[in-house]
Amino acid sequence: MAPMFRRMVVAGVGMIGGSLALAARKRGLVKEVVGYGRGEKNLRLARRMGVINRYFLQEGDMPEGVDLLVLAVPVQATVPIARSLLPGLESGCLVSDVGSVKARIVHDMEKLLPRTIPFVGTHPIAGNEQWGAQAAVAGLFSGHRCILTPTRGTDANALKKMARFWRRVGARVEFMSPSLHDRVLAVVSHLPHVLVFALVNALARTRADSIDLKDYCAGGFKDFTRIASSRPELWRDICLLNGEEIGKSLSDYISSLERLRGWIRDGEGALLEREFARANEIRSRMV
Amino acid sequence: MAPMFRRMVVAGVGMIGGSLALAARKRGLVKEVVGYGRGEKNLRLARRMGVINRYFLQEGDMPEGVDLLVLAVPVQATVPIARSLLPGLESGCLVSDVGSVKARIVHDMEKLLPRTIPFVGTHPIAGNEQWGAQAAVAGLFSGHRCILTPTRGTDANALKKMARFWRRVGARVEFMSPSLHDRVLAVVSHLPHVLVFALVNALARTRADSIDLKDYCAGGFKDFTRIASSRPELWRDICLLNGEEIGKSLSDYISSLERLRGWIRDGEGALLEREFARANEIRSRMV
Repeated sequence: MAPMFRRMVVAGVGMIGGSLALAARKRGLVKEVVGYGRGEKNLRLARRMGVINRYFLQEGDMPEGVDLLVLAVPVQATVPIARSLLPGLESGCLVSDVGSVKARIVHDMEKLLPRTIPFVGTHPIAGNEQWGAQAAVAGLFSGHRCILTPTRGTDANALKKMARFWRRVGARVEFMSPSLHDRVLAVVSHLPHVLVFALVNALARTRADSIDLKDYCAGGFKDFTRIASSRPELWRDICLLNGEEIGKSLSDYISSLERLRGWIRDGEGALLEREFARANEIRSRMV
Repeated sequence: MAPMFRRMVVAGVGMIGGSLALAARKRGLVKEVVGYGRGEKNLRLARRMGVINRYFLQEGDMPEGVDLLVLAVPVQATVPIARSLLPGLESGCLVSDVGSVKARIVHDMEKLLPRTIPFVGTHPIAGNEQWGAQAAVAGLFSGHRCILTPTRGTDANALKKMARFWRRVGARVEFMSPSLHDRVLAVVSHLPHVLVFALVNALARTRADSIDLKDYCAGGFKDFTRIASSRPELWRDICLLNGEEIGKSLSDYISSLERLRGWIRDGEGALLEREFARANEIRSRMV
């Protein structure tokens, strides 16, 4: 089978961008992958690992004949980096991103790019707390969802091609509007991260004589706080870019905590048990 | 080495009570373990598994010569079951529990028991979401903390003996006042459980077109919600028995969420990043 793309540029060869490059090369979907980024050490490592064929460091050094540009940088950097690379892009090049916030990015990218350079917003739901090219693995997307977020302005062929590309690296492709994506992700991912960051800090703040509360965290708590190992600047950006939906979920969540606090204060055992049993049942259907 | 106890009764042969029985038998700390409970099926299984030597089902059938009674029942049941078994206890028998709430239980037990029957409150910080005798394993406490919560009224010899007993089943014994214990556990365990129950319910409540949000929960979220698999009635009881401390932690936590919500609304990137970075650093020192 002929490769889908001749020359793919990955801006940001981290865990997601690097894994996509690896998977695409391994499955013969691209003839060549060129990395772009600021950290030369990371790009050199990526080349040594076989994640990319080569790389460039200056925005003006975009190679010729690029037919796919994947922006895999932190969400706040997506649009600025696209803007800086735009002069080097040829007509017909497909542009995509992998960010976990979509509405704002998709909106800004559609405004930025000319009609001849189609944009498809994508969000592969995969990954962990690692980062950098060393975290890249070809199988990262296997069996995981990848949400594509077309709008009325999305080029139908570009959308079809990106869907095929993601399926061929093993992902289960789904389609959502950018705003629905952001509502869903606010609840299943962004809110939980905010809660855990806040909880770990609450733990550190609590005074309990000379006791260091960290020492008393059992397995459950450690699992629970694993996501606090995520990069702070990444989550700052997500909070800023998806602030409206995260704010709504947070308000709703605060209300439910206030209700629980009232039940605990008033000794409402039956109401507490019903609330906990409901969560227990939902959770059991989740796994 | 001679066994520390001749006849140990375990009321509630579940994961904790059963594991303690197994460990004590395996290490020769007891000559005989007798199970007590309401569920005969569970007790029969425990006997077949070698967790206990024999069992009884009626409170009046307490065997003679019992020198250690461990109450390993749900926290709300601890004092009532102690009361019902008390007529069968001989002078000098040591009584202990394993509950994750201490102040109220220790207070009530000290009021209930005569001076000749010493009580030592203990809380082994070990276990997972399983339950019943089938979840009992001899190594459950190895390397885990066990907090003993003496008061001014605690018999010094009984305390020493229980500390030795727990050390010999592999636990790292520590001492705290019952109220300090409850403050620490509220933050590191009780509050996180309440938060996760509430979060899973928030997830189920959120409407997002025809989308089932459960399907979009990635690995991080699943780890996060694992503790929602805990038994609802157990957590109802903990909330009722440690309501004051849990309420305080919950109020403090709600305030910090309100602050974060304000920062998200106002686009306070620097403040958000500082908050997340602090949690990130604390978490990195936790593992």
